[in-house]
Amino acid sequence: MVTGTEILTGRVSDRNGPWLAEQLRLLGVDVGSVVVVGDRPGDLRAALRFLGAGGMDLVLTTGGLGPTADDLTAEVVGDAQGRPSAVDPDLEQRIAAVVARLMARRNWRVDPAATAAGVRKQARVPAGATVLEPVGTAPGLVVPVADGRSGPPVVVLPGPPSELQGMWPAAVDAAPVRAVLAGAQELRQETVRLWGTPESELAATLRRVDDELGGLEVTTCLRDGELEIVTRFPPSAEPAYRGLVAALQGDFGDTLFSVGPTVDDLVADALADRDRTIATGESCTAGLLSARLTARPGSSTWVLGGVASYADTAKEQLLGVPAATLAEHGAVSPEVALALAAGARRRFGADVGVGITGIAGPGGGTAGKPVGTVHLAAIGPEGRLTRSLVLPGSRDAVRQRTTTVALHLLRQLLLGGPPA
Amino acid sequence: MVTGTEILTGRVSDRNGPWLAEQLRLLGVDVGSVVVVGDRPGDLRAALRFLGAGGMDLVLTTGGLGPTADDLTAEVVGDAQGRPSAVDPDLEQRIAAVVARLMARRNWRVDPAATAAGVRKQARVPAGATVLEPVGTAPGLVVPVADGRSGPPVVVLPGPPSELQGMWPAAVDAAPVRAVLAGAQELRQETVRLWGTPESELAATLRRVDDELGGLEVTTCLRDGELEIVTRFPPSAEPAYRGLVAALQGDFGDTLFSVGPTVDDLVADALADRDRTIATGESCTAGLLSARLTARPGSSTWVLGGVASYADTAKEQLLGVPAATLAEHGAVSPEVALALAAGARRRFGADVGVGITGIAGPGGGTAGKPVGTVHLAAIGPEGRLTRSLVLPGSRDAVRQRTTTVALHLLRQLLLGGPPA
Repeated sequence: MVTGTEILTGRVSDRNGPWLAEQLRLLGVDVGSVVVVGDRPGDLRAALRFLGAGGMDLVLTTGGLGPTADDLTAEVVGDAQGRPSAVDPDLEQRIAAVVARLMARRNWRVDPAATAAGVRKQARVPAGATVLEPVGTAPGLVVPVADGRSGPPVVVLPGPPSELQGMWPAAVDAAPVRAVLAGAQELRQETVRLWGTPESELAATLRRVDDELGGLEVTTCLRDGELEIVTRFPPSAEPAYRGLVAALQGDFGDTLFSVGPTVDDLVADALADRDRTIATGESCTAGLLSARLTARPGSSTWVLGGVASYADTAKEQLLGVPAATLAEHGAVSPEVALALAAGARRRFGADVGVGITGIAGPGGGTAGKPVGTVHLAAIGPEGRLTRSLVLPGSRDAVRQRTTTVALHLLRQLLLGGPPA
Repeated sequence: MVTGTEILTGRVSDRNGPWLAEQLRLLGVDVGSVVVVGDRPGDLRAALRFLGAGGMDLVLTTGGLGPTADDLTAEVVGDAQGRPSAVDPDLEQRIAAVVARLMARRNWRVDPAATAAGVRKQARVPAGATVLEPVGTAPGLVVPVADGRSGPPVVVLPGPPSELQGMWPAAVDAAPVRAVLAGAQELRQETVRLWGTPESELAATLRRVDDELGGLEVTTCLRDGELEIVTRFPPSAEPAYRGLVAALQGDFGDTLFSVGPTVDDLVADALADRDRTIATGESCTAGLLSARLTARPGSSTWVLGGVASYADTAKEQLLGVPAATLAEHGAVSPEVALALAAGARRRFGADVGVGITGIAGPGGGTAGKPVGTVHLAAIGPEGRLTRSLVLPGSRDAVRQRTTTVALHLLRQLLLGGPPA
């Protein structure tokens, strides 16, 4: 159960659910459903009833533990489990000490009465619950149902991801959670990735091998042009999984580019393994590719940098794109993509250069070069590759998808495999 | 109800929920809860029961309408509403025509039998449901409860955002949905933004004015150092909202930087209004700032470009950072941040330059310059500003937060207001 009106109304995306789902999978626990609710007590109660009645073994809640009055989760969970809350004076002192340190360090002006009220609110604990020591200021809780009633224990975790993650080991170690996890078996998760196969063709293969998929849970997902086939299974179903991979390799050998790593990882590893360096020259994506290439720790070893050359003068002066090429073919052309790649490579002294130019929209399109037109080029010791396409969707969608195509162009240049 | 194991397990974030929540708000409809479930029919049924029983006036589902056998939503919704499904032959022909065009355009090799099976599956319609014409290949549905039963109508929408958004007007126009919406009143939403105020202080103000907040739903959210106060209210509560804003301006005049626009919009408007241009020199954020500055349509008017100078040689050669400055102060220093800003401004011929350098981690920290140390500088006709800080969190968190601080530094330089 995720609480917070800001998540319900979509202003903020939930970052804890994905992290917790992955941690739970490693412990052999599958997530049955996620309910997002606002800060209204009636909605919290209804969600807890739904989750408690669904045959679940364990319920986790995130968020709603702050010092403000609209943060209600701990109190409502206690009531739902039949365990009314009261202030824990020792916990109150420990939280007060944390808050005092925090205020001193950040030099915040504070109203002592307001602070004390917030601390007291955060120190309320349902009777018989296990307190998980705060990582920020909010303690977590493990709240079993009251004696004589039945239902899953509820683990109450704070909303800020760093606090939640810091508290997770203590949550897993609490006796009621240990009892639920005892005997659970690791759930493996493997991902096969295709580039350029439509979902309907994959469906035909999955239907054909359906009888041999016992014990596998297979889901497919099309994202930015990549078709991901994600399989979850207990270790005993390993042979069935190997059979599935063989069938996919047989049917989609020309589009299957990975049985594990993402395209980002494949490119990073190829550059690192070969001691190659890379630089980028981006127009419409304006830094999305350089930011994505440097998302991985240690990437400063192989990424030298990039130029986001939005203005034509920047293309000329910073990356040496000839004015004649710009004049003859226009800034959005395969020739300029190649010149951007060559210029990035030369100016940064990199082994590999990538160039991107295009019209992300919504304005700027013409009949000959509609919105979504993009040209990409990659040049390295292995040779050079170019790719031109017209992508559908919003400005953001075109920019994101173009960045993914650029990574596939680099993969193809460095490792071969399916064309970008 | 969001269906899809890929969303449940957190591999993909739900992009439809936020969009639908905003559309519904404009129609005067508040979202009570969101349930995310996998592709298991029992879980879909339980989620529909929960939502149907919660006193909701309308239920929307997204996803699970694809051609593969694990896409079950339409059939399960029909059963839950007491309306069994059958193939609609006219619809089947229309979908087949769309698929044929798609295949021809993309030049995909196809297995005709697999394609036909997928089309037939997508053409199954619950008895008495309204069909929403497909935007991609999947039709949507509006499924009222069977005669003699009670419960909200269910609107079944496809998962791909462009298909869902294209279909939305038809969904709103369907008779069962119109009946629900009749008489609903617009819900306004306004956001007040503070930079550098802790949530506990805000709580004190909200408690003090609590009696005057009738009709307002106020939620607060701390994100990347910004404290957002979001208020939703019917038009009749406008005076109460004005009172809240006055109280916030009184208490937080020195940190309140906006009663509406985001910091991104403030900076973009300030640059556009003054005919100013901007260029960036980024080290640890490596393009995140230039990508964010260009996310807005039309930004090519004021963004000239940027250099992601990951390597020191790139800082020297592309942005003219003096080797002596790098040697004397190190790459992560206020002096280099200023030199990056000045270099970006000079090399791109821009009015405003921004420089960012820092240690995003997880490696590379030292006792004197721990992970999270970042230095920023902004230079323009208005003068120059610098900011140095040590940020907590992961590599990704440090990079994102640094980008937000850079935008506040630009806001401060261009517009004054709370210091970054």
